[in-house]
Amino acid sequence: MSVSATLAANETIIRRREAGEYVLPLAFGEAGLPVHPELIEVLSRHAGRNGYGPVSAIPSLAEAAAGYWSRRRLPTEPGNVIAGPGSKPLLYGLMAAIGGDMVLPQPSWVSYAAQCQMLGGTPLYVPTPTGVGGVPDPDVLERHLDHARAAGRKITGMVLTLPDNPTGTVADPDLLGRVCELARQWDLFIISDEIYRDLRFAGEAGFVSPAELAPERTAVTTGISKNLALGGWRLGVSRLPDSPQGNEIRDRLLTIGSEIWSSAPQPVQHAAAFAFNEPPVLRERIQESVRLHAEVAHLVAAQFRAAGATVPTPQGGFYLYPDFSDHREVLEAKWSVTTSADLAALLLDRFGVGVLPGSAFGDDPKALKLRVATSQLYGDTDEQREASLRSAFPAQLPWLRAALGRLAEVLPELTETKPSLAVPSA
Amino acid sequence: MSVSATLAANETIIRRREAGEYVLPLAFGEAGLPVHPELIEVLSRHAGRNGYGPVSAIPSLAEAAAGYWSRRRLPTEPGNVIAGPGSKPLLYGLMAAIGGDMVLPQPSWVSYAAQCQMLGGTPLYVPTPTGVGGVPDPDVLERHLDHARAAGRKITGMVLTLPDNPTGTVADPDLLGRVCELARQWDLFIISDEIYRDLRFAGEAGFVSPAELAPERTAVTTGISKNLALGGWRLGVSRLPDSPQGNEIRDRLLTIGSEIWSSAPQPVQHAAAFAFNEPPVLRERIQESVRLHAEVAHLVAAQFRAAGATVPTPQGGFYLYPDFSDHREVLEAKWSVTTSADLAALLLDRFGVGVLPGSAFGDDPKALKLRVATSQLYGDTDEQREASLRSAFPAQLPWLRAALGRLAEVLPELTETKPSLAVPSA
Repeated sequence: MSVSATLAANETIIRRREAGEYVLPLAFGEAGLPVHPELIEVLSRHAGRNGYGPVSAIPSLAEAAAGYWSRRRLPTEPGNVIAGPGSKPLLYGLMAAIGGDMVLPQPSWVSYAAQCQMLGGTPLYVPTPTGVGGVPDPDVLERHLDHARAAGRKITGMVLTLPDNPTGTVADPDLLGRVCELARQWDLFIISDEIYRDLRFAGEAGFVSPAELAPERTAVTTGISKNLALGGWRLGVSRLPDSPQGNEIRDRLLTIGSEIWSSAPQPVQHAAAFAFNEPPVLRERIQESVRLHAEVAHLVAAQFRAAGATVPTPQGGFYLYPDFSDHREVLEAKWSVTTSADLAALLLDRFGVGVLPGSAFGDDPKALKLRVATSQLYGDTDEQREASLRSAFPAQLPWLRAALGRLAEVLPELTETKPSLAVPSA
Repeated sequence: MSVSATLAANETIIRRREAGEYVLPLAFGEAGLPVHPELIEVLSRHAGRNGYGPVSAIPSLAEAAAGYWSRRRLPTEPGNVIAGPGSKPLLYGLMAAIGGDMVLPQPSWVSYAAQCQMLGGTPLYVPTPTGVGGVPDPDVLERHLDHARAAGRKITGMVLTLPDNPTGTVADPDLLGRVCELARQWDLFIISDEIYRDLRFAGEAGFVSPAELAPERTAVTTGISKNLALGGWRLGVSRLPDSPQGNEIRDRLLTIGSEIWSSAPQPVQHAAAFAFNEPPVLRERIQESVRLHAEVAHLVAAQFRAAGATVPTPQGGFYLYPDFSDHREVLEAKWSVTTSADLAALLLDRFGVGVLPGSAFGDDPKALKLRVATSQLYGDTDEQREASLRSAFPAQLPWLRAALGRLAEVLPELTETKPSLAVPSA
């Protein structure tokens, strides 16, 4: 499945829903919550800011982001912060600044591979260890690097995702330590995509960033799209390492930013400065969001498990990565499903459940894995989403109860071998 | 001068001014006017829009932009409109979608060449005819294309700028017709950068877009950065031709946009939809802006002419392109100036006048040409800028009088051969 096919899948789901069809929207990675009123107020107050400003960031945003990271055991100078219109363009700019082929975890977010290819590189996919995503398996990584270098490939960097999209898991410090050691040994620059960091269900306790383990060679990206549900405001920030290599990449990234996007939108930069200063009102908002994301992710995971899927325990963000591989035979016999794309198509067309196939994330097409995003279940209106956020028992809200009920009804159909009395109409 | 050097020049000027030095800011291409209050209101009203939305554009913006072009003899369907976070990323995306080497007018805006190079291409600079910029001289273009093709180069596209940056001029329909005919003959795709179109001093009368002359092969880009002074809001739109080739490039641009920037900031898209619908209040605002841009451009041009420079008559935007080549001998003898970079450095360091050298725009370094942006003279505060916009005689406002006086004082020094009694201290 190409990237534009992922886009097309999302748009099919939106179209069907707009046409009145009951389709569960479990495909799109949008945080699904309203903007906090204080952020609306700050954005409005800065609407008159119309200058382009510095390519890197307005000073107040650079300082606020530096403070954000410094409070997370990553001491940061404002001069090492570069903002952009989303963390996506920053990832693209960083890959361009690094150059060459990138190691990507398999599976990993769709855009890493697409960006690497657009820049003329070829991703080197390395499978993640069983049960956790976002970092390559160190043993396999070493073998792959050996082979790739022997074949004359120039492997220059590696992308890690903590917490991970698509798996919703978080790599632990031991695993990370081994991967960072290999990065050092093989001279790979690391891009650590930490856009879901504030949405780790266990909070900061025990979280370790690659930038702590390999500070000289790790750039970190984050933003306000996921923790504060501001994807449509388009604002990301990156933290460049304070090292000779880091300074070189920072300068290149600044030139790239200057030529592709000029600067991030100014009114949004002011709001982001407010956000990265982490006032209590926004800290609390993020805590509430995490509670909801965790609750719903666990509830949906339970439904997939009840249908026989293996689901890594969700630890952050709003994603699940159920695996139906144990049911390969029945899925093929009953539904002619042999790939994750078949399985995603079956779920959408026959059962009205919109998910993405693992193959979109670079996984083996025959692995019967699905990326399930749970955050679109919080409601169709800002009122419903706000109610989800406030509820002590979100599962009891009508729209969430309906969605979970639907999953309970249809998912077991996938793998049940006895004839059913209640097959939904196609 | 590299692109980052251009950036550095601008930042040097800003720093010196912040340090209290009197430096005339004639380098930076920012519109220098406040945001219209209605636009602030519309942006604030849509601050809660936090979804990513479609990659192309929200429907209301696609419709408004289609209407904007349709009212300008370019009938447009909303499906042929793609927005982005600025017209700069759209230009980059279009070049990426076209692929290969691009014909660029010499001189032309700094980022075209930089973007082409970042994408692995090599710009083919073709000099513009005497007295007008933004389009290559057709006779020279044909020769250059012959040579380039004979050398095995793959020339695939051409960028035109109407009105032009850096020269502030507008190509006439006859000239354009010949260039478009060559584009057809040589199968070049045209990107017509029309970001200054609404700032043509003569209005729409007599303006012809390449998209009228070569509709099947011309994409148009524009935005709200210049006409409405909203550079820092980051919003551009492109119009793809309704042709098989246009559809292919549109699809590629959508994939590129999806992978690099996702979408343009949503609250800004809503404000841009309002703007492209051209309500009377904004039409009037643009008319007032044009009046001011024209008045000040002509006043500053007169100062450069009084000092002996040849200056093409400004016809749109807020730029001048004075040429001191007739004074090459005295400039070298008196100031050791032999390149445009020398001249720009002399003006900044000795006379406190910040401009950019023609070499930054791809011009021959030995041609003693300067890019002069006049829009930063309208004031240092929104109050001053608003007063400039309202004034019937802006030249009499204290800050504009001071700036013009300074130019009248220092510019003649450049080329005067008799000893002066009033050399400013270095």
